[in-house]
Amino acid sequence: MTFAARRARLAVELQAAPEIHAAQETAAPGASAILVTSPVNVRYLTGLASSNAAVLVTSSGDAVLATDARYIETARRVCPDLETIEHREVAKVLAARAGTGVLAVEGDRMPVSVYHRLQAERPLTAVGGLVETVRAIKDEGEIEALRRACAITDEAFSLVIGRIRPGVTEREIARWLEIQMIELGADKPAFDTIVASGPNGSIPHHSPSDRPVEPGDLVTMDFGALHDGYHADMTRTVAVGEPAGWQRDLYELVRQAQRAGRHAVRPGATVAEVDAAAREPIVEAGHGPHFGHGLGHGVGLEIHELPFLGPDKTGRLEDRVPITVEPGVYLPGRGGVRIEDTLVTRDDGPELLTLTTKELLVL
Amino acid sequence: MTFAARRARLAVELQAAPEIHAAQETAAPGASAILVTSPVNVRYLTGLASSNAAVLVTSSGDAVLATDARYIETARRVCPDLETIEHREVAKVLAARAGTGVLAVEGDRMPVSVYHRLQAERPLTAVGGLVETVRAIKDEGEIEALRRACAITDEAFSLVIGRIRPGVTEREIARWLEIQMIELGADKPAFDTIVASGPNGSIPHHSPSDRPVEPGDLVTMDFGALHDGYHADMTRTVAVGEPAGWQRDLYELVRQAQRAGRHAVRPGATVAEVDAAAREPIVEAGHGPHFGHGLGHGVGLEIHELPFLGPDKTGRLEDRVPITVEPGVYLPGRGGVRIEDTLVTRDDGPELLTLTTKELLVL
Repeated sequence: MTFAARRARLAVELQAAPEIHAAQETAAPGASAILVTSPVNVRYLTGLASSNAAVLVTSSGDAVLATDARYIETARRVCPDLETIEHREVAKVLAARAGTGVLAVEGDRMPVSVYHRLQAERPLTAVGGLVETVRAIKDEGEIEALRRACAITDEAFSLVIGRIRPGVTEREIARWLEIQMIELGADKPAFDTIVASGPNGSIPHHSPSDRPVEPGDLVTMDFGALHDGYHADMTRTVAVGEPAGWQRDLYELVRQAQRAGRHAVRPGATVAEVDAAAREPIVEAGHGPHFGHGLGHGVGLEIHELPFLGPDKTGRLEDRVPITVEPGVYLPGRGGVRIEDTLVTRDDGPELLTLTTKELLVL
Repeated sequence: MTFAARRARLAVELQAAPEIHAAQETAAPGASAILVTSPVNVRYLTGLASSNAAVLVTSSGDAVLATDARYIETARRVCPDLETIEHREVAKVLAARAGTGVLAVEGDRMPVSVYHRLQAERPLTAVGGLVETVRAIKDEGEIEALRRACAITDEAFSLVIGRIRPGVTEREIARWLEIQMIELGADKPAFDTIVASGPNGSIPHHSPSDRPVEPGDLVTMDFGALHDGYHADMTRTVAVGEPAGWQRDLYELVRQAQRAGRHAVRPGATVAEVDAAAREPIVEAGHGPHFGHGLGHGVGLEIHELPFLGPDKTGRLEDRVPITVEPGVYLPGRGGVRIEDTLVTRDDGPELLTLTTKELLVL
């Protein structure tokens, strides 16, 4: 899909009534244009990756791009079809170009101080998740970038797994995974790699430490490659040495829950239904309180993006929406298990992008 | 310095009059507490690295920390002296704890939608750069982390430089630098590595491409290591093959400008004076329009932080403020030169942290 087509989809959203935006609460009825200032959304709408750029999109789909001296040459090359303005205060210069109607801005992204400065000059309305709603449904080019990111992630896992043994530290494993992903062609890791061994496994977002892996540990690795701007996300938990009975049982429970979650992924399913499909077996096993996060999230130009899967989330999946499914059970003081895939909601059944086995690997 | 001491410094800033905040425009006279919600500032004030946490600091220096289930166990371990609340809506739960006085929030960080939701419940005031002002002056532990990050950066450069020759691509050089930094103990690259060869050198923030380096190119590399949360930042420009006269002249000009900038760094100097010291020789050589960015910026828990050095910036340097000095000249269609060091403002003269030679290396 061309960037112009994305902007046209945004223009349609801009005029839509609030009720069609299932995944958020605010639309912008009556706004004549939207000022997009968050770098990731500017990139999505124009192709320009910059730390200081903004794009103004009118309700008729016209657009103007502003960026500063550091990026202007790239902007003109990447966006030859767009009018470009070189200016450091990108929001201010574009707000002045927006005509007299109500101007929508990104309420979840724009700092309140910027909002107050612009509001002193003209009427504004802060809207939520408009570009993010457009971004949730991917085109096949985006899915191909995700597929490649996930393939790098799988391959890095396969190349590192043989080096995990008692005595190596969480930090070493994290480094090996990250270096391997870069060597395989990742732009960089998609996020800070999590490696949690033994009792650290009870901390869902544990930072890798100098703790050496010990025989009898479960080791959870949550990592992914960034490729061409798109973020892979995968978690596997492995056993170092023969696992105890409770560890096998816990692993099997989470594996069943993860499978149930994946099987609930289809266009039309609500995000709460998908969450519930995976959560129910965990709750039935008495581990409800030990699964304290949502089931998953969209992935794309950000590692966490619409839609979010959770008991209290709203909205429905649609065709071509990549998401993660990642149930976990965390037992304070003892350890934990999480299993996560990235997959794409498809009309003919979900497409799994992370292909690493979910059999319990005993190293 | 302990985290409690940092919070005490913040409490003092909270009560200070606006005029002492040279580096920004807003303070919070009359606020009885500040709600800090940006991850980097929460980390600075508590030691907790989390994507969803907030800390409430009162004008008497008392503090409460909130985070969600994913981070609560880490929070209790990292911050044993702090009251901790487990809740997903960290801003909301802490705002409710803030008493009846005016509550300050981070105007440059808090999204306007969050501000509007909190404001519906209680009086708020959006302040600018309060924690950032405290952060600008580092303690010796922070400087040691930066010193180590810069040493990794220097060493990675020395290990990669011998591999740069005609035929290798910008992207390959960037990968080598990044892998080398991680292997040397970096947590990760401090920012996306810039490698700009030949005509691409005219783009200050060029993304590494598949362009192979050619004989006669200048190659600019802007990169750094992240160590223990602290960001190194260094740029060197090298010549591949014997440089042309204009390339040598340009390099020498930027080198002289960079030296002049470094020599102007001292406590009490205004950030505009330091910028001018480096800018003047470039302007005198007729290249003023080809140096389109500020001279440098603070580094620390963020790669760009207070103070910022530029012709239109205000404020003065103080003892123990780490900054970059990075003049550049960019000639569209031909190429460019940038030379950058990270150094620390000291009472007894600046301490250079990036030690790689600034002689023109001809490879």
